[in-house]
Amino acid sequence: MQDRASILLEALPYIRRFHGKTLVLKIGGSVIESPKLLDSICQDVVLLNYVGMKAVLIHGGGPEITREMEKAGKKPKFIEGLRVTDEETMEILHKSLVGKVNKSIVLGLSKHGGRAVGISGIDGNLIRARKIKRGKVELGLVGEIEQIDPSMVNYLISTGYIPVIAPLGVDKTGTSLNLNADTVAAELAIAMKAEKLILLTDVPGVLTEPEKKDSLISHLPVKKAKELIESGTVKGGMVPKLRACIKAVENGAARAHIIDGTIPHALLLEVLTKGGIGTLIEPD
Amino acid sequence: MQDRASILLEALPYIRRFHGKTLVLKIGGSVIESPKLLDSICQDVVLLNYVGMKAVLIHGGGPEITREMEKAGKKPKFIEGLRVTDEETMEILHKSLVGKVNKSIVLGLSKHGGRAVGISGIDGNLIRARKIKRGKVELGLVGEIEQIDPSMVNYLISTGYIPVIAPLGVDKTGTSLNLNADTVAAELAIAMKAEKLILLTDVPGVLTEPEKKDSLISHLPVKKAKELIESGTVKGGMVPKLRACIKAVENGAARAHIIDGTIPHALLLEVLTKGGIGTLIEPD
Amino acid sequence: MQDRASILLEALPYIRRFHGKTLVLKIGGSVIESPKLLDSICQDVVLLNYVGMKAVLIHGGGPEITREMEKAGKKPKFIEGLRVTDEETMEILHKSLVGKVNKSIVLGLSKHGGRAVGISGIDGNLIRARKIKRGKVELGLVGEIEQIDPSMVNYLISTGYIPVIAPLGVDKTGTSLNLNADTVAAELAIAMKAEKLILLTDVPGVLTEPEKKDSLISHLPVKKAKELIESGTVKGGMVPKLRACIKAVENGAARAHIIDGTIPHALLLEVLTKGGIGTLIEPD
Amino acid sequence: MQDRASILLEALPYIRRFHGKTLVLKIGGSVIESPKLLDSICQDVVLLNYVGMKAVLIHGGGPEITREMEKAGKKPKFIEGLRVTDEETMEILHKSLVGKVNKSIVLGLSKHGGRAVGISGIDGNLIRARKIKRGKVELGLVGEIEQIDPSMVNYLISTGYIPVIAPLGVDKTGTSLNLNADTVAAELAIAMKAEKLILLTDVPGVLTEPEKKDSLISHLPVKKAKELIESGTVKGGMVPKLRACIKAVENGAARAHIIDGTIPHALLLEVLTKGGIGTLIEPD
Amino acid sequence: MQDRASILLEALPYIRRFHGKTLVLKIGGSVIESPKLLDSICQDVVLLNYVGMKAVLIHGGGPEITREMEKAGKKPKFIEGLRVTDEETMEILHKSLVGKVNKSIVLGLSKHGGRAVGISGIDGNLIRARKIKRGKVELGLVGEIEQIDPSMVNYLISTGYIPVIAPLGVDKTGTSLNLNADTVAAELAIAMKAEKLILLTDVPGVLTEPEKKDSLISHLPVKKAKELIESGTVKGGMVPKLRACIKAVENGAARAHIIDGTIPHALLLEVLTKGGIGTLIEPD
Amino acid sequence: MQDRASILLEALPYIRRFHGKTLVLKIGGSVIESPKLLDSICQDVVLLNYVGMKAVLIHGGGPEITREMEKAGKKPKFIEGLRVTDEETMEILHKSLVGKVNKSIVLGLSKHGGRAVGISGIDGNLIRARKIKRGKVELGLVGEIEQIDPSMVNYLISTGYIPVIAPLGVDKTGTSLNLNADTVAAELAIAMKAEKLILLTDVPGVLTEPEKKDSLISHLPVKKAKELIESGTVKGGMVPKLRACIKAVENGAARAHIIDGTIPHALLLEVLTKGGIGTLIEPD
Repeated sequence: MQDRASILLEALPYIRRFHGKTLVLKIGGSVIESPKLLDSICQDVVLLNYVGMKAVLIHGGGPEITREMEKAGKKPKFIEGLRVTDEETMEILHKSLVGKVNKSIVLGLSKHGGRAVGISGIDGNLIRARKIKRGKVELGLVGEIEQIDPSMVNYLISTGYIPVIAPLGVDKTGTSLNLNADTVAAELAIAMKAEKLILLTDVPGVLTEPEKKDSLISHLPVKKAKELIESGTVKGGMVPKLRACIKAVENGAARAHIIDGTIPHALLLEVLTKGGIGTLIEPD
Repeated sequence: MQDRASILLEALPYIRRFHGKTLVLKIGGSVIESPKLLDSICQDVVLLNYVGMKAVLIHGGGPEITREMEKAGKKPKFIEGLRVTDEETMEILHKSLVGKVNKSIVLGLSKHGGRAVGISGIDGNLIRARKIKRGKVELGLVGEIEQIDPSMVNYLISTGYIPVIAPLGVDKTGTSLNLNADTVAAELAIAMKAEKLILLTDVPGVLTEPEKKDSLISHLPVKKAKELIESGTVKGGMVPKLRACIKAVENGAARAHIIDGTIPHALLLEVLTKGGIGTLIEPD
Repeated sequence: MQDRASILLEALPYIRRFHGKTLVLKIGGSVIESPKLLDSICQDVVLLNYVGMKAVLIHGGGPEITREMEKAGKKPKFIEGLRVTDEETMEILHKSLVGKVNKSIVLGLSKHGGRAVGISGIDGNLIRARKIKRGKVELGLVGEIEQIDPSMVNYLISTGYIPVIAPLGVDKTGTSLNLNADTVAAELAIAMKAEKLILLTDVPGVLTEPEKKDSLISHLPVKKAKELIESGTVKGGMVPKLRACIKAVENGAARAHIIDGTIPHALLLEVLTKGGIGTLIEPD
Repeated sequence: MQDRASILLEALPYIRRFHGKTLVLKIGGSVIESPKLLDSICQDVVLLNYVGMKAVLIHGGGPEITREMEKAGKKPKFIEGLRVTDEETMEILHKSLVGKVNKSIVLGLSKHGGRAVGISGIDGNLIRARKIKRGKVELGLVGEIEQIDPSMVNYLISTGYIPVIAPLGVDKTGTSLNLNADTVAAELAIAMKAEKLILLTDVPGVLTEPEKKDSLISHLPVKKAKELIESGTVKGGMVPKLRACIKAVENGAARAHIIDGTIPHALLLEVLTKGGIGTLIEPD
Repeated sequence: MQDRASILLEALPYIRRFHGKTLVLKIGGSVIESPKLLDSICQDVVLLNYVGMKAVLIHGGGPEITREMEKAGKKPKFIEGLRVTDEETMEILHKSLVGKVNKSIVLGLSKHGGRAVGISGIDGNLIRARKIKRGKVELGLVGEIEQIDPSMVNYLISTGYIPVIAPLGVDKTGTSLNLNADTVAAELAIAMKAEKLILLTDVPGVLTEPEKKDSLISHLPVKKAKELIESGTVKGGMVPKLRACIKAVENGAARAHIIDGTIPHALLLEVLTKGGIGTLIEPD
Repeated sequence: MQDRASILLEALPYIRRFHGKTLVLKIGGSVIESPKLLDSICQDVVLLNYVGMKAVLIHGGGPEITREMEKAGKKPKFIEGLRVTDEETMEILHKSLVGKVNKSIVLGLSKHGGRAVGISGIDGNLIRARKIKRGKVELGLVGEIEQIDPSMVNYLISTGYIPVIAPLGVDKTGTSLNLNADTVAAELAIAMKAEKLILLTDVPGVLTEPEKKDSLISHLPVKKAKELIESGTVKGGMVPKLRACIKAVENGAARAHIIDGTIPHALLLEVLTKGGIGTLIEPD
């Protein structure tokens, strides 16, 4: 009985501290592909919302898009981690990200009693973007964020809705652009002065030795995070993720987390226990 | 000059009367398929919003869905005007209606300066539905509306957004259901106590002689509308549309219009001139 | 039909732009003397109020006062355009301007459904004034404005009333003073940060050649307006009117208009059409 | 010193009880004609307003109007106490009541620091009236009240202004009508659910023997008031005044007073001392 | 790790359900006498307040009062469980309950970061009482509650304060009266429509066999609770406590608890776990 | 009659000027000891509250504490006017000041219809204090104020309650400290930006010759007050009182008064008459 009491005594101050605070969550493709993991995440999100936190979800959808492209006889091509996006690919993005993946998360949250609203960055003036120019390389309809107007998202969370956002933006000509989901999450966390940016990935967090899962860094001040990148200790796909976290923390988000979304209830454990389970990036 | 003055003298009282009032518009497939008509409608909607009316758009998307089904090698099948919807068809609906058509309207409104938000009936607890049962006939994932919670839509219009809604609903098990767009528009008009329900079709309105365009009925009291259906004067696809209008007017919407969306600026002319251009269904 | 649509397409953005904005109108004696013109102005004011603009009327009443003075055996005398005002004349002003002219405008607006409130600058602390001193010349109870407190007028327009104001002020000793109506209108437009100051006169606007009505200047930047006065192109009674407009625009009113109030519905045409009908004085 | 304390101890509970409460005062011609009395009344009104009571003034102006009529060569004619009012007389009313008397009270209140606003029953939709019909007798533009909309007056008092109201009304055709000032005061007290209706007259109050000033009745329950009228104890001009008070008390005003306005600071003494100085008419 | 997750998954819905809800707690003398238990209770109360619940504390103080009486050479005397209270005893109550016990709880809550306010039922018009009359028996200054005005307590909790209330009341003559703390708690729970009334005692709850601690009844519908009293199963000091709970539940409090305050963190465990640790009395 | 009018004419402007303003009153032991004087003060406070002033009472209790100490066989000891306070003395303070004196004032105010709330500086985070250190002298639990958080007191007065405050504070370790009541009153007057700090003593005010009661200084600018202290004209117990007043006036309170609380209704006479009865300390 006193164990229960001590777990609760530990969790209550966190519940209070984050009451009414905004959590911007990015859910990666690996979590979305597993119905069981997606269900566990949805339950956590709804529970945290119940006790007063304000969750905003950004989702990717890479595997689904790749599948649909291949179905349409197109070969996915990436340049510096960005998917080359022609008009046909953009139509697939609209259909798969907005029409399918986004709504499946909305339905998942509804199942646990959450009132979710699925939108994209082109709705409600949310994300104004422009085409990326990378010298001569042709990326097509791939964009970078010019401006975020979070007023609709702020409204939604203030009235208890859980926004679920597909990472698209719109340029001045009214054209839809493909955006990187981690970047959208980081920029939104900045625009909303979020308490937390949480990236749910399929690795334990930032590791000093990528091979060893027990080399996890629990607390990572921004300065040290930059050194890890510069020294090459952190490599590959973790680099842009860590950069997104650094940018968020340096520009208005209180802290950022990179956690392993494949652990059941990873979100709950990260937010409500002292040690957490992943890497916490915080100001120096 | 005095002509201008008299047109303005005529329009101003309408602008005032409808200030802050809700207009629920249903845009049919024939309008959506024409980029030019869609653009004219979007301009009208944005202008009416400018002067204080609150537009809500419901859209269909039949031709697009049919095309996609055929592309996927499926043969569309209709029973009593309802599209038989298996799971594969539902995925096409999600992709085409929500992912493609809905967002193209959002982008069209944005182009004219409107702040549009594209959602579906499964977002924000908007439409709770249940599967239709028609004896032994198998319609699949086709639903009828159980309950509408317009609170999110009310919020969106109260802060200046233009909601664009795809006609889907969700049942208790969290399954997406295909709904009739005219019905969704009528039920939403009722739930929001709309000032007007306006169905934009490809015919002039209710005709006493379907062949003769000049047999248009401008003002149609509900009682007479029912007689026209019973007597068989009104037939075919106009019957369910007229029924939707009657239901709306009898249950809370102030009035309903059936107009020819293929006339440029049909919406503006119907709302701001004395005669209007289509059929106005009003209480007895 | 499409003509109607295009006139409305032109007018709607103006209606929106001026929604909730303040229009300070000065109606001169020549308009007031004609029941038909006064009726047309009243209708325009009420309609613009209907669609959300906030009109404030200042009125003159010269012809009526002159008539009453002559009836009382007094000979009107003007110095630099200002009516010499002894105590007896002041009583006539109270009776004619406040008691008669003001209330006839109130009744005119009521007739078209407007909720008008007739006051003067001595009510509600509106206009604090002091006697004008012009060397040895004795003007009597003629004042210049010291301070305007528009709070009551702001309240009245905020709750939908149309204030109708007689151009009187009160000095520190509690004495009533005669003020120039154009000046009152300009100062009130400044104090209320009005969107527009509109002087309704009996000429088409500012003309480059006073004899030729077609020499009207439609758009007149402040700088050029000053040059027209300095160069003597603009003369006579138009000079103080143009000066009032310049002062208003330079001190907080967004723009000023001088229009021909003898054209039916002049106000509507000026406010809601692109070209307008008179002269628009605007910041450089 | 303790005398002062006891007067204050007596007055404070009244100041508190009437804080924020509405006092509708009717000032008769005899008070208005004396600059000194008018000044004393104005001071009292401003002081009571200072400590939180909300005064509304209705004024007569009989002597002034009669003088002006005679100046114009017209002979005043009264039927049952109502002044026969032709169009010429109405113009005199507008000029004298609204233009002159009303503004002199406004200036008197301003002199003591009050923020007064002079209006009439035709402003702001205040009093809707209709012509009185008395068989074949022709009263002309004399009206009776149909409806009072006190919303503007309520606003004025809620923001600290002191409304001063000339007893005119407007009929459906937009015609100005002459109303009885006592009646206007009583009806306004009813419409505003006033705490007190106070008629300032030139007699001590209701007397049991009109000749004897010391036969004053201090407290008069409604029932007894009616008996005094029926029995003929109260006669002449006091009858309609007492009737106005009875009507007010029976329809929403908390109590009514008839006091001698010719006693300096009569108002202060009536409102803030236990005994008062006139007659208090109160519910049984 | 997953144990933690499951304890949290269990607690979160309770935290949400009781967010913003009022908990009226009565702390008995046995808890107050133990500094360690009092500290544990204070920590729990502050934590529950942290996560949004609104706690109100009523305290007894029997042992302390008895000690002080004995110190003053007085022999405590009880009639039907009520302490006979003469004036001297009342002074001891004021000094001990209000001056000492109450403030020690306030200081205990402050120590854990709570903002506590210690008052008694005679402050802020909280409890109006009258002397109890029991035939010829003389109880002295012992009262029963006439009326509770919880507005100040409601304010205090609405702005985050924790009210700590000594069980005194005041009668019409301004005399202080001694009240039963359980009754005060129950009546306050009714007046505030509390979510929970919680009596912290020194027994496990309602037992079917008083000797056997494992005969605890976890859920007790009101009907059954009455039977337990009538049948004599529940006896002694538990009877008035159970009666207080029944009354509370039947008159507006959602539910009532009787728990063992001598278990560390009893409050937390009762409120945030499914089984709870004491007896829950709830509507049938 | 006109005498009454003139007293009221004098008092009304004060009532208005102090409407809604805060009066911080300190009641000394000599007033509290006399039931009759306390009753007169309570009546004045309630009346001033009635007419809109916001009274806050700080009370001493020296005589009572001294009596209780002697009863307990303890000999009161003062160093520089501060009572040496060991733990036993502190318990007496809690019991006598908080438990007895404070509540007797609350009951006194209630008797006259006031809604009083008795608290101490340790409630609601009101006064944070620290132990005074005076070289080697041991004062015990005597404190000086570190910080005042008047938010709860502000709330109480804003909703019509009259706070009655015992001069205790709490230090960081949660220990209760004894504070000087004049200092508490002065600091609270500063923290609340009070209109007036009023010290009710048993002398007429500041005297130029302590022996002669008619040497009272009515108006005392701060600069002169300092000179009186420096020159030794003011001596003894008046020095700290005058210093408290000077500090208050120099740090945010508008003015301060030292008056003779033994004159019946001293408070009323000081606040509502031109001359007042004591000494008014005001900014230079």
